[in-house]
Amino acid sequence: MQLPLKGIIPPMVTPLLENKELDLVGVNNLVVHLLQGGVHGIFILGTNGEGPSLSYALRKQLITEVCKIVDGAVPVLVGITDTSLEGTLEIAHHSKKAGADALVVAPPFYFPISDQEMNTYLEAVAHLLPLPFLLYNIPSCTKLHLGIDVVRRARDLGAIGVKDSSGDIASLNRIIEEFRNEHDFSIIAGNELFLADTMLRGADGAVAGGANFFPGLFVELYNACLRKDQESIVELHRKVQKIDETIYQVENSQTSSIKAIKCALSLMGICGDSMAQPLAKLNPEQRAQVKNHLEELNYGEYFFL
Amino acid sequence: MQLPLKGIIPPMVTPLLENKELDLVGVNNLVVHLLQGGVHGIFILGTNGEGPSLSYALRKQLITEVCKIVDGAVPVLVGITDTSLEGTLEIAHHSKKAGADALVVAPPFYFPISDQEMNTYLEAVAHLLPLPFLLYNIPSCTKLHLGIDVVRRARDLGAIGVKDSSGDIASLNRIIEEFRNEHDFSIIAGNELFLADTMLRGADGAVAGGANFFPGLFVELYNACLRKDQESIVELHRKVQKIDETIYQVENSQTSSIKAIKCALSLMGICGDSMAQPLAKLNPEQRAQVKNHLEELNYGEYFFL
Amino acid sequence: MQLPLKGIIPPMVTPLLENKELDLVGVNNLVVHLLQGGVHGIFILGTNGEGPSLSYALRKQLITEVCKIVDGAVPVLVGITDTSLEGTLEIAHHSKKAGADALVVAPPFYFPISDQEMNTYLEAVAHLLPLPFLLYNIPSCTKLHLGIDVVRRARDLGAIGVKDSSGDIASLNRIIEEFRNEHDFSIIAGNELFLADTMLRGADGAVAGGANFFPGLFVELYNACLRKDQESIVELHRKVQKIDETIYQVENSQTSSIKAIKCALSLMGICGDSMAQPLAKLNPEQRAQVKNHLEELNYGEYFFL
Amino acid sequence: MQLPLKGIIPPMVTPLLENKELDLVGVNNLVVHLLQGGVHGIFILGTNGEGPSLSYALRKQLITEVCKIVDGAVPVLVGITDTSLEGTLEIAHHSKKAGADALVVAPPFYFPISDQEMNTYLEAVAHLLPLPFLLYNIPSCTKLHLGIDVVRRARDLGAIGVKDSSGDIASLNRIIEEFRNEHDFSIIAGNELFLADTMLRGADGAVAGGANFFPGLFVELYNACLRKDQESIVELHRKVQKIDETIYQVENSQTSSIKAIKCALSLMGICGDSMAQPLAKLNPEQRAQVKNHLEELNYGEYFFL
Repeated sequence: MQLPLKGIIPPMVTPLLENKELDLVGVNNLVVHLLQGGVHGIFILGTNGEGPSLSYALRKQLITEVCKIVDGAVPVLVGITDTSLEGTLEIAHHSKKAGADALVVAPPFYFPISDQEMNTYLEAVAHLLPLPFLLYNIPSCTKLHLGIDVVRRARDLGAIGVKDSSGDIASLNRIIEEFRNEHDFSIIAGNELFLADTMLRGADGAVAGGANFFPGLFVELYNACLRKDQESIVELHRKVQKIDETIYQVENSQTSSIKAIKCALSLMGICGDSMAQPLAKLNPEQRAQVKNHLEELNYGEYFFL
Repeated sequence: MQLPLKGIIPPMVTPLLENKELDLVGVNNLVVHLLQGGVHGIFILGTNGEGPSLSYALRKQLITEVCKIVDGAVPVLVGITDTSLEGTLEIAHHSKKAGADALVVAPPFYFPISDQEMNTYLEAVAHLLPLPFLLYNIPSCTKLHLGIDVVRRARDLGAIGVKDSSGDIASLNRIIEEFRNEHDFSIIAGNELFLADTMLRGADGAVAGGANFFPGLFVELYNACLRKDQESIVELHRKVQKIDETIYQVENSQTSSIKAIKCALSLMGICGDSMAQPLAKLNPEQRAQVKNHLEELNYGEYFFL
Repeated sequence: MQLPLKGIIPPMVTPLLENKELDLVGVNNLVVHLLQGGVHGIFILGTNGEGPSLSYALRKQLITEVCKIVDGAVPVLVGITDTSLEGTLEIAHHSKKAGADALVVAPPFYFPISDQEMNTYLEAVAHLLPLPFLLYNIPSCTKLHLGIDVVRRARDLGAIGVKDSSGDIASLNRIIEEFRNEHDFSIIAGNELFLADTMLRGADGAVAGGANFFPGLFVELYNACLRKDQESIVELHRKVQKIDETIYQVENSQTSSIKAIKCALSLMGICGDSMAQPLAKLNPEQRAQVKNHLEELNYGEYFFL
Repeated sequence: MQLPLKGIIPPMVTPLLENKELDLVGVNNLVVHLLQGGVHGIFILGTNGEGPSLSYALRKQLITEVCKIVDGAVPVLVGITDTSLEGTLEIAHHSKKAGADALVVAPPFYFPISDQEMNTYLEAVAHLLPLPFLLYNIPSCTKLHLGIDVVRRARDLGAIGVKDSSGDIASLNRIIEEFRNEHDFSIIAGNELFLADTMLRGADGAVAGGANFFPGLFVELYNACLRKDQESIVELHRKVQKIDETIYQVENSQTSSIKAIKCALSLMGICGDSMAQPLAKLNPEQRAQVKNHLEELNYGEYFFL
């Protein structure tokens, strides 16, 4: 893996069969779809990947499958966050064995902990990890909005980057300002709406949920940012925002985008829309709305590059 | 197990060795201490039990050990909450096999979900459980403050009670008002400070963290409530509150009481104070403060009944 | 005024005509209704009184009118909280001139401030007040949940009591534990559902919104608490809770109880239900529901003692 | 006044003497400083202007003074938000008489209200206003994060723009997307860190607190945005962010930037640093830190254009 990590790294959803087993055909379709779309990496078992909802066995199976299909074409990142340290390490070691490139670590998320407790946790865990790791800030799920001190501590402990999905642009800006000149430390926007703004200031890329279905759109926006082509940036950002304002709003819940992404992929014939408990797939009426939005957006050209 | 569940049911902490293996001697000491203190049940692998922080293997070992020691003397309740349905069921089935009496189910806690999604989850899970279950409301850890509709749904799906650790007395009062005449449905206060107030209105007992170290104090308060002995209630409640205002405040964090309970048990020679990641035991200075508070409180008489 | 303040002190709503002028007939009716109900004091211009929504001129007119009608029968307390110090003092001095007995001071509520800033504010303001004052904790409106340190500081600066409307029973219990033996310092529950529980532990009374329409119910509950008559307490508390579960839930908003109280008073013919901007009175359908609830509750006996 | 409002519109702080009277010399200095800095408008009595903390008399005096000094050079906007409708209208009518150009309306901020209640409020108030108005979204002070529906309703009721100080870039982006083609409706970022990002997508300007002391910096950044000069934008944005990361962090409170702005102006000899209750000026040590930061930033060139 070449450092720093850069570019569009979709947080891949986990295709599941109706019986909740891994959808092997769907996994293959989706990985191929992403690679053809030109993405620069694949992040599995994150929030969009419903990582914590899956059994260890299924998580390991997914890691193995994705690494096999990707076969070194781009880096594979694996979310290893778990409330049990043993569980975290079990997934970490399997990732190494399967050929993944990096691990993504968020705070253990059952207990409400503080930045200081997260630092202590990182100190205990970092040296046990068999692969490079990124720090993952996602307070909507973990309850802890990691402060800049935790990012610094992770950096000192060897982290190769940070993925910020806090939705707090000020916080992400502060990280950029502090680390933009450290070229082996990647700053990855976890919110696709922040991709353009933060790239222009020094971020390295984005973990964009929407890149699951329109990978090419995000890769184009990323390239426009690299070229500092302001006109294209504004136009492509607008297209990204349209996804957020339509497809992601079909259901009114905090996890609506995850469900909508699987629904869209299902409508595209890439994989099914089955979700792991406790999330449920969109109902038929919502599915029809996603279909309408997809047709109106008419972004077919952005399937692939 | 005789229904409804009633009385003082300590949320037992999980004694761990410094190497994070189960402290078998500590487990034995603690269970014996609780039984001698007159408790009416034991709840393991809840929040105080650091359930989600432990590996499945350790959770199972603990269940087996506790059931063996208790040997039917009082009901054993097992927290089975997990973010993975498979994990939840694995612990549930082991509990049945080990001889536990009931399961305790909180929302899967990674994703922020709604009451409606929790209802759907319960509908999917309830009939898969091999033992009776209680609903567990603990929004500080799960992010979801279960509404009265979820309690109703759980009841309809066969729940034998609800344990409310929301810290929201109004919510608990509403539950009492609605279910106090359903005698096979237990209403258990998850906050020890609410024991007296809610018992007087119709609650059935409390899962009181402090009962780990002073089981007799809580059993006496419970008995005073049964007798409606207002004078004793006020006096004993004051003693409970003193624990909260001293020992639980030694550390300033949302999990301070869990750490303080293990520290107190360690000072009493019952088990060690080692915590599972991501929590850390109190430092020597804090430990000295707990020691001082214990001496000042001078509640030795409440070790046992 | 005899200290400490004790008993049932309704947070009187402010009767308004449709043109938003003061409803003088309604004010007279309501004050007489409260006095006949046996209340121990009247608190005007608090949250239920929509104090901050009213012009200074109207606030002064109300103070003058209420003091005239009460004529020393019970203490009159005036909410003087304002975002402008000059406004606060203007109302304070008018209160003194009109014959009111005490002032009620909450944090200035535009800026988010800290406990420490509130202490500094109290230090600046306390010695400028021409009448005794109580501290008023109502974070739902002021954004600041006053800590025990602020209560201590207010006490040191001469406060004669504290009214806690935080809805946080643990916080109120802590205040009771610390100040229950200071007999010239009143501890007043701002939440009517906490009246019984906190009285039994040493609180002095309650500012109960529901006492606007059923003063006698709350006075009876207060008296039952004084007698420590547990059976009556449970029964009367249940009646209070029923109001909360029915009438106050007719509208789904954070200010529903205020609107419902005025609506109930209007249905009883005591005053109109007109609200000051930005609140709006209940609509006809909601009004019909309040009417139904009133009939079902059938608490007519609690109009007066 | 020419519509739409555009450009840099500082939320002017209110210079006060130590005795809390208006600092007339300071007001003159500050207005002249802003005009020489090239600002496109002046917004008085907003949050930075401590509007709600000031008596009506002082608010009116300030309006009169500022209008006199500005004398039509740029539009003068007046914050009229108050918890009392009468107070709001009193300030509105005085603004008209004094020659101000527009009013700025946030939700009445004592009661927690909903979007729907805000719409009803706007319907009642809009036609009573004697001058054009902008909607003002500042949930940190008003508790209500105005949704897009309220912006639409305000637009329909004649609002000439919206100032969004929510700190929620997604919300501001949605507003831009919906209204950017309505050329008589101004979209003003209330957060100076969002100026560049939002201008590039179609916003019209910013109410930038930092423009109180370095008006030229913000005017340059605004001009760079107009020219779409990406290199200058990144460089100037970085300078703006540096202010946020240094001067605004000297004190750890939610109002630290307001205090720091007055402190900086005081160090520059423009006006004093006295604050209205309940805010307090920075202490000598903090003042020394602001001084150091000002020297290190060395932005003297941005006093004026």
